[in-house]
Parts: sequence; C-alpha cells; structure tokens
Amino acid sequence: MTERLDRIIEFLEVGDGLKAVERAGYLSDGSRHETDSDHTWHMALFALLLAGETGVDLDLGRVLSMVLIHDMVEIFAGDVVVYDVAAREAAKEREREAAERLYGILPGDLRDHLQGLWEEFEERKTQEAQFARALDRLQAFAQNVIAGGKSWRERGITREVSAEVNREVRDSFPVLTAAFETLQQRADRQQLWAAPATGTPKQQGLPPDRDQSTL
Amino acid sequence: MTERLDRIIEFLEVGDGLKAVERAGYLSDGSRHETDSDHTWHMALFALLLAGETGVDLDLGRVLSMVLIHDMVEIFAGDVVVYDVAAREAAKEREREAAERLYGILPGDLRDHLQGLWEEFEERKTQEAQFARALDRLQAFAQNVIAGGKSWRERGITREVSAEVNREVRDSFPVLTAAFETLQQRADRQQLWAAPATGTPKQQGLPPDRDQSTL
Repeated sequence: MTERLDRIIEFLEVGDGLKAVERAGYLSDGSRHETDSDHTWHMALFALLLAGETGVDLDLGRVLSMVLIHDMVEIFAGDVVVYDVAAREAAKEREREAAERLYGILPGDLRDHLQGLWEEFEERKTQEAQFARALDRLQAFAQNVIAGGKSWRERGITREVSAEVNREVRDSFPVLTAAFETLQQRADRQQLWAAPATGTPKQQGLPPDRDQSTL
Repeated sequence: MTERLDRIIEFLEVGDGLKAVERAGYLSDGSRHETDSDHTWHMALFALLLAGETGVDLDLGRVLSMVLIHDMVEIFAGDVVVYDVAAREAAKEREREAAERLYGILPGDLRDHLQGLWEEFEERKTQEAQFARALDRLQAFAQNVIAGGKSWRERGITREVSAEVNREVRDSFPVLTAAFETLQQRADRQQLWAAPATGTPKQQGLPPDRDQSTL
C-alpha cells in the first residue's frame, strides 16, 4: 500500500503544476490570463450542465475523468497546439513523451487507466470523448466572448479564423451547435473579433504559432 | 430550448467568478495564492485517483459532480468558513442565500439537481459526500505541505490546530487516513507548522476569522 500511495501522492503533487500553465484567454474581468486549471474546472462544469442536454446517454463519470486530465501533459510539454501540420506533429510527439513521463509516475493499473482516458480523448474514440473535445473548444470560445474578445483582438483572430477552428466540433451535438450559435451572435453584436485584413494575405487562415485551443 | 440554454450559459458565465476567489493556501512554488478553481480542479483529481482505493463502490460521476460545485456559493458569499459556532452559523446562512441566488439562475430541474448535490455534500448524506468532504480537507492539507507550510506559518497554525481541524475526516476512509499520515510525517520532518505558543492563550485553538478549509 505504501509505495502505491506514495506514487499517487507524487502524481497529485505534480498535478499542482497545471495551475501554473497560462493560456491565451483572459478571465471575464480581464484581470489576468486563464490557467489550465481554471479552464479545466470550467470545462468540467460545462460537462456537468450540458451532458444531460445532448439527448445521448453519456457516462458522466467517464466524461469528467477525461476532462480532468485532458491538459495535464502540458505540465511538461507546455501549451503547444499550433496550426501547421508539421509543427502539430512535433507537438504531438512532445505530448506523447510528456504523457509517458507523467502517467509513468503512477502504479501500472492507474497509469494504464489515465493514459487510456487521455488517448480516448485525443483520438475521439467514443461519444464521451467527442463531447469532451467539443467542450474544450466551447469553453475557450465562451471564455473569449465573456472576456469581451480581448485575446482575439490582441492576437488578430478574425471571425472567420475562429469559425474555421471550431468547425469540426460545432456540429458534434445539437445543444453545442446552439450554444456556439448563441455565443457567436453575442460576439457579432459586440464586435469582439479582430477586423479582417484587407488585401494582406498573412491574415488569411491561422497565424503561425498560435494556440488553436483558445480560439 | 433557447431560454433553457440561455440560463445554462448565464450560469456557466457566473461560474467564471470561481477563478477569482482567493484561498489562504499557496501554489507549490509559492508564487501566488491558490484560487477556488485551482483547489476544485485539484480536489477532483484527488477524487479520480483515490476513489478506487477506498474499497467502497463509490459513484464517481456523483463524487465529481459534488466536488465541481462544492465551493461555487463562494462566488457570491466569499471564502467564509470560520471557527466559532455563531460565526459559522452566520456563514451558513449567507451560503444558503448565495445558493438560492446561484442555482436560481438555472432551469428548475437543473437548479434542483445542483442544489441537491450541494446539500448532499454539506450534510454528508452519502458515502460519496463523505468522501468528497474528506478530500476537501485532504487537498488543502496536501497543498500546505507541498507549498512548504508557508500559509501555516503566516497564519500561526500549529500542528495541533491543523490536526484538530482534520480530525473529523481523517478516519473517514483507510486510504485517506494513510494519505494524511504520509503527508503529516513529511510536514513533521520538514517542520512546516508554526511553532506552538508558550503560555499565550490566544494561540490555543483556532484563531478567529480563519478559513478552516485551508488548514
């Protein structure tokens, strides 16, 4: 028991690092950037409130478990989801190494369980994973809206770029489509995005080295 | 659907406030205080890792649901768990009013569900609630240990005061008893608590206006 518990406690201690990983988005009062722990807690709250609205019988414990650990590799790998395919593949490799290191702290059965949850999430293997992935984007989108678009404008993110990034998850579940729609209308009314560039091709598509998870 | 979804989105937006409620404890690097969202995420991770170690068949979805919302009343009521009975009763009343206001944002069925989860947690009605309550203390205790006792010493919290606060939950589940024991031994080795007062009665028992949840 003792060695097993020591490993669990060490993992929980390493987990404290998630509170220090800063994201591009801001709190709604603009006072500081969101952290990965803020985002993860909030995303879990989205899951708790919206799972029952999907019309699908989702395993809430499994959804929440995936949500809770989905960004933990960033404790070692940093917040690294970038736009071009080569860089994305490199980030994926770094995250896979981070996952080995992170989950390797745990006793074998718990390592397999958590690494399995992370892979389920990354590979969208189940409806629970598809729901959790969509919430990862929805929370980030909502956070940008409630923070008045501060991060969008700072980073030159236009309505079109934002829509492109969320396209793959927007239609995953009807209630999430409706939530994106509601928030997008609010962003339109308040003109929260960066203005589209006129004639300069560098504003077309995603800017380089941008964390897509926060668009 | 629209009004229902609008209420859910409003609730999620209010939830952003949890990220701004500061606690007495620090991050492990001492760089800043923990927030309620940090604490809640971390406590949920404790639940995910330790639920299977209890030897009891706990409903993980229910445990995590309770954990996720357990401090949300503090968005309106502040971080207010104090030591003397009268003040505690007043805080309880404020939290009950905050709960009405907070959960009243939601459609009736979701309001009842979340308020029910909060009451289950507060009143320790089920094994899931007892487990979640114990983790509330265990995470705070562990956080103080990994942060090198900074908050304990700043606030004059001795080993005895800390032990007294955690007494009611320490023996709730054998694995949590063992976890408290492991962490306490580390705190003893590193001498993390404030030194006991010699002869001054004000250091006996809990100091006034102190948030017990962080001891």
